[in-house]
Amino acid sequence: MEVELKEMLEDLEALKRTLSDPSHHDSIAKLQQHVERISDLAKSVPSRRSKVQDMSAEVVDSNPYSRLMALQRMGIVENYERIREFSVAIVGIGGVGSVAAEMLTRCGIGRLLLYDYDKVELANMNRLFFRPEQSGMTKTDAAVQTLSDINPDVVLESYTLNITTVKGFETFMESLRNQNFRPRNGDGGVDLVLSCVDNYEARMVVNQACNELNQIWMESGVSEDAVSGHIQLLVPGETACFACVPPLIVASGVDERTLKRDGVCAASLPTTMGVVAGLLVQNTLKFLLKFGQVSPYLGYNALKDYFPTMEMKPNLQCSNAACLERQKEYILTKPARDAAAAKAKMEMEASSATEIPIHADNEWNISVDDSYDIEKTDLTSSSDALPEGLTRELPSADEFQILPVPEETSTSIDDLEELRRQLEALNAD
Amino acid sequence: MEVELKEMLEDLEALKRTLSDPSHHDSIAKLQQHVERISDLAKSVPSRRSKVQDMSAEVVDSNPYSRLMALQRMGIVENYERIREFSVAIVGIGGVGSVAAEMLTRCGIGRLLLYDYDKVELANMNRLFFRPEQSGMTKTDAAVQTLSDINPDVVLESYTLNITTVKGFETFMESLRNQNFRPRNGDGGVDLVLSCVDNYEARMVVNQACNELNQIWMESGVSEDAVSGHIQLLVPGETACFACVPPLIVASGVDERTLKRDGVCAASLPTTMGVVAGLLVQNTLKFLLKFGQVSPYLGYNALKDYFPTMEMKPNLQCSNAACLERQKEYILTKPARDAAAAKAKMEMEASSATEIPIHADNEWNISVDDSYDIEKTDLTSSSDALPEGLTRELPSADEFQILPVPEETSTSIDDLEELRRQLEALNAD
Repeated sequence: MEVELKEMLEDLEALKRTLSDPSHHDSIAKLQQHVERISDLAKSVPSRRSKVQDMSAEVVDSNPYSRLMALQRMGIVENYERIREFSVAIVGIGGVGSVAAEMLTRCGIGRLLLYDYDKVELANMNRLFFRPEQSGMTKTDAAVQTLSDINPDVVLESYTLNITTVKGFETFMESLRNQNFRPRNGDGGVDLVLSCVDNYEARMVVNQACNELNQIWMESGVSEDAVSGHIQLLVPGETACFACVPPLIVASGVDERTLKRDGVCAASLPTTMGVVAGLLVQNTLKFLLKFGQVSPYLGYNALKDYFPTMEMKPNLQCSNAACLERQKEYILTKPARDAAAAKAKMEMEASSATEIPIHADNEWNISVDDSYDIEKTDLTSSSDALPEGLTRELPSADEFQILPVPEETSTSIDDLEELRRQLEALNAD
Repeated sequence: MEVELKEMLEDLEALKRTLSDPSHHDSIAKLQQHVERISDLAKSVPSRRSKVQDMSAEVVDSNPYSRLMALQRMGIVENYERIREFSVAIVGIGGVGSVAAEMLTRCGIGRLLLYDYDKVELANMNRLFFRPEQSGMTKTDAAVQTLSDINPDVVLESYTLNITTVKGFETFMESLRNQNFRPRNGDGGVDLVLSCVDNYEARMVVNQACNELNQIWMESGVSEDAVSGHIQLLVPGETACFACVPPLIVASGVDERTLKRDGVCAASLPTTMGVVAGLLVQNTLKFLLKFGQVSPYLGYNALKDYFPTMEMKPNLQCSNAACLERQKEYILTKPARDAAAAKAKMEMEASSATEIPIHADNEWNISVDDSYDIEKTDLTSSSDALPEGLTRELPSADEFQILPVPEETSTSIDDLEELRRQLEALNAD
């Protein structure tokens, strides 16, 4: 509009030069005033804040990072600015994913990769983030518009695609493998994948990708009645994968589009989705910046304000071949991890008399506090033991066991069981 | 801008009529084209959605309420549309209050009353809701701008004032007393006050107002290190008031402006504030729409994902005279409540053989589930018993007991203790 207004002023000036009658000059002056007022009105359209080079801890009203850098002074985070080195992929930019993206953007995350194929509708307005005037835009475009206005320092990559299609899955895998984002000390690649999808099929696809890439990810979900949800950390080979045991509270696999044809739809609330997104990103921050305890699984029952937690071990008979590969690797690398941990422990004891962490090989920063209620559910031995208040909404792992293990899998169930037995024998010494 | 552009076209037309040379007509045509293009550009500025008369459950993409009305079909809420009859006051439109306001707006609440005196700064951008281009606006103006765009059906009342000043307190009280909003079956007045302030003084003022008006309210807070928070339900006379016992996890009373002078500020995170706002509004919805269990107190420890709950009885030696009045009323009206409850129970038993609620006089919809960890803390008898993981950041109730009870109080401590004794004797029969 600025260009258009400038051209118009020039054209008015040119016209003025061809007119001799003073009354015409008055008319031109009046028109010039109109243009000036329109320019002023156009200027009142909001402008974006400029990028900042470094995160400053300076306490001034104009510093968007002062309250985050204060986490260092408070002793919560050792080096907050490291957040700019991390890349997080968010699959599904709906009620949970969009809020998670906004939280990470406001926290000043280095790079966000956003995946969705859907469009914004007025029917989405009962959840946070999207605005009515964005109706009809793709969720990825609308998200990039809002997020880049909020924090221009974040690198945003948007993928308008369906990861459950062959082409979509290829692009998804390629984007997760891409090593081009290397800020300062960052390693490249993606540090964490957040699954914020609303159906079973898409979760299985994220699971497949992360198992193949040995990529740590977090799963999230909200029930169809909108009053419960969960988050779960999945470390390939180390924890249960999504195929080892389906999550306990999850929206059913029914596609919303199918539901809509019958004139029904799932319920949703901005509260439940906001809480789940908040817990998800809080655990993401704890995982990336290494503070507090990352929850292996955290449920949210909104009717009772009840928050069950637990841990799930991988299933030795998992139907996912890549999961079995990761389990094998994890078992085989255990002696090396233990040795490194022992060495680190010795060095620590030698250099100082300060407190020793319980698990020095605790790569992903998890710990269990005995003072509150955590049940460790070993799904490979006890079949159906669940903490109170949890129900299974999807087939249990047992039903997966009848599936034949693919022929091309190099790791057989017997291999894994033998490996685990050997490891246990070693540990018993 | 529309008016300005229209006037400009008229002026161009008038100028054209006074010009005879055809070359001048070309210049005018060119100018008219400029105006048209500017009009098109101005039109691309987003427009708002129109108001809707009734909440529809129809499952179409254009219905902003379909996912909320689905709560009825799912059996969670009996009559969702009742939400349009309720008024909620939010004191403090900061990191928690603004998100709470957005959640209630997206849920289609009838009326929101917003109170704040502060301005939006870039330093607020690490929390959800406000946008960088709103810097310099008052928080109330910025909130009304955003919320009315999101949902024009909500009646918004904005009060740019400091409730801790004499004049501010008067306006605050007046606005809470105002009975003019009477949608359909609504009762007028305010159904719930949400305290989302960041300092001790403002909390004491909300407490004073709610005790005087016998107004149920919910308190919320986030710690200065940004990794813990709480919500609490306060029912004058029935539960502890804010002066009976200060909250257990709360930002200290130090004013942020004082802190800033020394070059330090409190830390904050969009995650913690989003979770606290989500839990606060979820309990607001449960309270207003009568579903699930309203938590009397719910803490959030972000480092451990630990959520303590408990109940607090009023302090018979509370320093707040209005609280003592409400306690007296509550005790005096207990026989009538019990009789009404007994009658309701009998009618229910007569009309059906369905399950009987545990407390028929359960006005504010609270229940306690023995299956999880709730400790009832009676602060009038046991002095310092707190659930594990909670620490007191403010002086304990004991320190208030040394304050003299104001002379003008018609209710003395002895009165209340005598009343309670009589009541207990009655109940023992």
